[in-house]
Amino acid sequence: MAITGVTRPGHAQLRVLDLEQSVEFYKNVMGLVETGRDAQGRVYFKTWDERDHNSLVLRQADQAGIDHFAFKVLDRATLERLDSDLRAYGVATERRPAGDMLGTGERVRFEIPTGHIIELFAEKEFVVGRDRLVNPTPWTPQSEHGIAPLRMDHALLYGPDIDGNVKLFTEVLGFTMPEYVEHDDDGSKIAVWLTCSNKAHDIAFARFPEPGKLHHVSYLLESWEKVLRAGDICSMHDVKLDIGPTRHGITRGTTIYAFDPSGNRFETFCGGYQCYPDWEPIRWPLSELGAGLDYPQRKLHESFLTVVT
Amino acid sequence: MAITGVTRPGHAQLRVLDLEQSVEFYKNVMGLVETGRDAQGRVYFKTWDERDHNSLVLRQADQAGIDHFAFKVLDRATLERLDSDLRAYGVATERRPAGDMLGTGERVRFEIPTGHIIELFAEKEFVVGRDRLVNPTPWTPQSEHGIAPLRMDHALLYGPDIDGNVKLFTEVLGFTMPEYVEHDDDGSKIAVWLTCSNKAHDIAFARFPEPGKLHHVSYLLESWEKVLRAGDICSMHDVKLDIGPTRHGITRGTTIYAFDPSGNRFETFCGGYQCYPDWEPIRWPLSELGAGLDYPQRKLHESFLTVVT
Amino acid sequence: MAITGVTRPGHAQLRVLDLEQSVEFYKNVMGLVETGRDAQGRVYFKTWDERDHNSLVLRQADQAGIDHFAFKVLDRATLERLDSDLRAYGVATERRPAGDMLGTGERVRFEIPTGHIIELFAEKEFVVGRDRLVNPTPWTPQSEHGIAPLRMDHALLYGPDIDGNVKLFTEVLGFTMPEYVEHDDDGSKIAVWLTCSNKAHDIAFARFPEPGKLHHVSYLLESWEKVLRAGDICSMHDVKLDIGPTRHGITRGTTIYAFDPSGNRFETFCGGYQCYPDWEPIRWPLSELGAGLDYPQRKLHESFLTVVT
Amino acid sequence: MAITGVTRPGHAQLRVLDLEQSVEFYKNVMGLVETGRDAQGRVYFKTWDERDHNSLVLRQADQAGIDHFAFKVLDRATLERLDSDLRAYGVATERRPAGDMLGTGERVRFEIPTGHIIELFAEKEFVVGRDRLVNPTPWTPQSEHGIAPLRMDHALLYGPDIDGNVKLFTEVLGFTMPEYVEHDDDGSKIAVWLTCSNKAHDIAFARFPEPGKLHHVSYLLESWEKVLRAGDICSMHDVKLDIGPTRHGITRGTTIYAFDPSGNRFETFCGGYQCYPDWEPIRWPLSELGAGLDYPQRKLHESFLTVVT
Repeated sequence: MAITGVTRPGHAQLRVLDLEQSVEFYKNVMGLVETGRDAQGRVYFKTWDERDHNSLVLRQADQAGIDHFAFKVLDRATLERLDSDLRAYGVATERRPAGDMLGTGERVRFEIPTGHIIELFAEKEFVVGRDRLVNPTPWTPQSEHGIAPLRMDHALLYGPDIDGNVKLFTEVLGFTMPEYVEHDDDGSKIAVWLTCSNKAHDIAFARFPEPGKLHHVSYLLESWEKVLRAGDICSMHDVKLDIGPTRHGITRGTTIYAFDPSGNRFETFCGGYQCYPDWEPIRWPLSELGAGLDYPQRKLHESFLTVVT
Repeated sequence: MAITGVTRPGHAQLRVLDLEQSVEFYKNVMGLVETGRDAQGRVYFKTWDERDHNSLVLRQADQAGIDHFAFKVLDRATLERLDSDLRAYGVATERRPAGDMLGTGERVRFEIPTGHIIELFAEKEFVVGRDRLVNPTPWTPQSEHGIAPLRMDHALLYGPDIDGNVKLFTEVLGFTMPEYVEHDDDGSKIAVWLTCSNKAHDIAFARFPEPGKLHHVSYLLESWEKVLRAGDICSMHDVKLDIGPTRHGITRGTTIYAFDPSGNRFETFCGGYQCYPDWEPIRWPLSELGAGLDYPQRKLHESFLTVVT
Repeated sequence: MAITGVTRPGHAQLRVLDLEQSVEFYKNVMGLVETGRDAQGRVYFKTWDERDHNSLVLRQADQAGIDHFAFKVLDRATLERLDSDLRAYGVATERRPAGDMLGTGERVRFEIPTGHIIELFAEKEFVVGRDRLVNPTPWTPQSEHGIAPLRMDHALLYGPDIDGNVKLFTEVLGFTMPEYVEHDDDGSKIAVWLTCSNKAHDIAFARFPEPGKLHHVSYLLESWEKVLRAGDICSMHDVKLDIGPTRHGITRGTTIYAFDPSGNRFETFCGGYQCYPDWEPIRWPLSELGAGLDYPQRKLHESFLTVVT
Repeated sequence: MAITGVTRPGHAQLRVLDLEQSVEFYKNVMGLVETGRDAQGRVYFKTWDERDHNSLVLRQADQAGIDHFAFKVLDRATLERLDSDLRAYGVATERRPAGDMLGTGERVRFEIPTGHIIELFAEKEFVVGRDRLVNPTPWTPQSEHGIAPLRMDHALLYGPDIDGNVKLFTEVLGFTMPEYVEHDDDGSKIAVWLTCSNKAHDIAFARFPEPGKLHHVSYLLESWEKVLRAGDICSMHDVKLDIGPTRHGITRGTTIYAFDPSGNRFETFCGGYQCYPDWEPIRWPLSELGAGLDYPQRKLHESFLTVVT
């Protein structure tokens, strides 16, 4: 099989300060579909176009941030193999039973060198209707409610040892690294983009003194025009924008960064090339990171480097 | 590794009736970059954004059509394994030595049940410049010369036994089938879309009485606006359009079909979802194929079903 | 004042075969806002963005077509002056009292050489809310219900003596002619585009044996992406498309033609240049009309020439 | 005639610090066409799509800024009438003879209350080719060289007495005011948009202590995608961006502000509604100007208020 191992981002579990305010935001501004609430009070969402039961889970907490970021692997056998490979590599793994999260099978979880919790799972309930599987319309009325992204696409996480992450993700989990930012002086890596697919990134990491930090969870849109529409919707709802609309030099994608009501940054983006594992990665000297972040402005926005949850 | 086996369409070798007229067309209308000519007189092209030495090869002949369609596999070991798997499956394979095609390593070739020649190779020279690998611009002046697609993306081939193709591509080559068209009555397959990646299609087949026929080679553009620009450029050069601009219901992509000077159909398209191997395929009853082909018009254009080379 | 005389298309009154089916179409597919019904049973609509009380009026009848097309003039004095000018020119005019149409002042009506009824009026109630006049949002939720054009923009009418129309509209009503189609042989005019503003057309006429015919009423959209969305919405509602999405060579605008439930053709379009009265008109030989109508396809669609109501 | 009096912006004459560097910028980054140089050393430009001989004139000087902004009036009689009207209103006018500027007829010039020099002229040589007047292509190769706007569209000028300008432009020159910004407290005007056409603005003024200042000259693009392309081109040429890409709340247009090599700000924008003289103007309280300037970010960029030439 041409696509094996880790197939895609599965879900992000975020901490929010006011659950109902956040549910309101993710339903009516982001335009996600609420798919359930569990006994712990967590609320589950998917985009209108996703088939999996959930891709975002919200949990009320005293501090914003990310609990864990999860990937769906091809099947049960892959899950067992990767768990075994992780342990062989020296990573301690734990299991969470099927049903601990709504619609989600057993999960293997582990901490990565930047201090984040990553999870793998092989099974998540498909909730796609027949009308989406038999001569479907290209879009639906739900796709015009709020920002209404196509999918939860990737996350950028901040923490200290991103070299350790690269080693783990490429040597054990089968990811490749299409782009990276390095110090002009010593060539040490500042930020890395990693993919388990043809997408330019399924996850990214940037070096930061504090471990376990969330920079943003990213949602995919269909066009640059939809990116502007996302910005308009943010403005209509007094959602604070951080950067954009603009284009990244890195990945070439177009983007807006903004903040959810708890201060968790999110991205609504479009585009980015499709890439292959035999490609030499693209290198950005730190001195050019302004163009990498905001290509038209060539501006290294301060908040991009410092504001995380 | 998450992406293994067959990674991507590598090149299409087309027969053209007048080589220099065709070179002119592919350079100045399609906007490809000529990368070489070999001793047999074949002319090689790549898009401005492709890294591989070539993705289109033209050969002068008395009859238009496709000689073969090739895929790049991950590495030498994969090439040997797939050759062995093909033989074990009962497919006769042949080898073409490295250097038989410019910039291209050894190729394994075989005939598939629809009568087309498919090739696999593991090595193709990278011709990407340093300026594309170190803080690259998102596009270059070349990307505005002619239609200037991002890449050669896929082909649709017509022939009799598409069921045999599906079996071969899914069971031996690791492809999955995101969409298909079936007879309303007997459920037999009329057309199938197959992918070895996250793309909605890396190759497609439609049932047709004659074997080995080319429906179209497809080139990827960045946006619906670029699709219109491609149509404008075709008109400026008196290139005959077949269908479009419009949107496919199948894959959701936007599209124009047109013909090169020899009558080989090509597509310039944008979009289409990204998909995963665990997804249930989307089914189009033949009675809805009009919407699948031309969503706004819901029209099953006669030429789509009958004109091939 | 720089803009004087006739300022803009005011309203079109159309005949429909089934009033409630048509109301359903114009509200939920076209996405217009119903603004009233009068004692005669006529139903009035405006777009979400128009300020005037109505721009489309539907009347149930046994035969589809257009009753009249009306323009708003600058003020009462202009209305009186133009009435007087028309009579001096030899055109018989009639008056319809204020209130005969909802929200509309006194109208001057007359027949033009192609057999259509044209009306002029100076007053129409403004129905724009305070929220659109004080720091307005760039769009509203209504602008995403159905096709939701910005405005009723122009009409194309078919009839015999278009030369007479050009003379009347340019010499009496102050219009200019930015583009026209002429016979290659004798230079006689086949079709003319006329404007009373910077728009490429406020009304257009094409030569046709029968008088008083409607080719289409046209609605303006914001972008080529919205034109595709209009085509998608038509397909979702089984609305029959005639031509498009494509680009006109004439005016450069992008377009879809389709039919309302009574067979009245409408256009959803975007773009077109802005022009000035001192410009030499653009000329299209009839032999190039294919490119003028459908630039990418260079195709003179038969239905464009023959199907009218 | 429906369009009379002042018809359109004609040209802006700018002061630049290094003429050849500026010519290089306006030819190869902005993508204008050089149409001539005069005995004084001034260099003349037009856009690829403009018919008039020039719309931008550069003059080398020690200080950047604008010499004058000119409008084309309908004809000679209009020029004489407006000169007479200006004098009757109390404005001193001067004449510049035909030929003083290349391709340009006699000009009437006068100072307005904000200290800017405005000119009116009735004649400018048309330089449009036959290929643009007889079945023209919708765009040409020139339209892809540099930013390549459709036209010079308007200017925003800063100076003290904008109320005086409004009175002069509306009472004498026939402009109307579609939008304005006012102090929340005393309702005094901070900024005004004025039009002599259907465009949302042909000129705009903002209150500023110093007279005669240039905020920006604005160039029209076809789409939001072209606005991004303009930003990409600026970045490729190390042109400093000020704001954008983003959307204005005021006019709804999309925009990028950037600086030419002398520090003169320019805008590349798309969109904006078309408006009519009988419309009530849209009002922006100063407290909402952030949304008026940068709708997605709701940000009143400091440089917008303070940086002028």
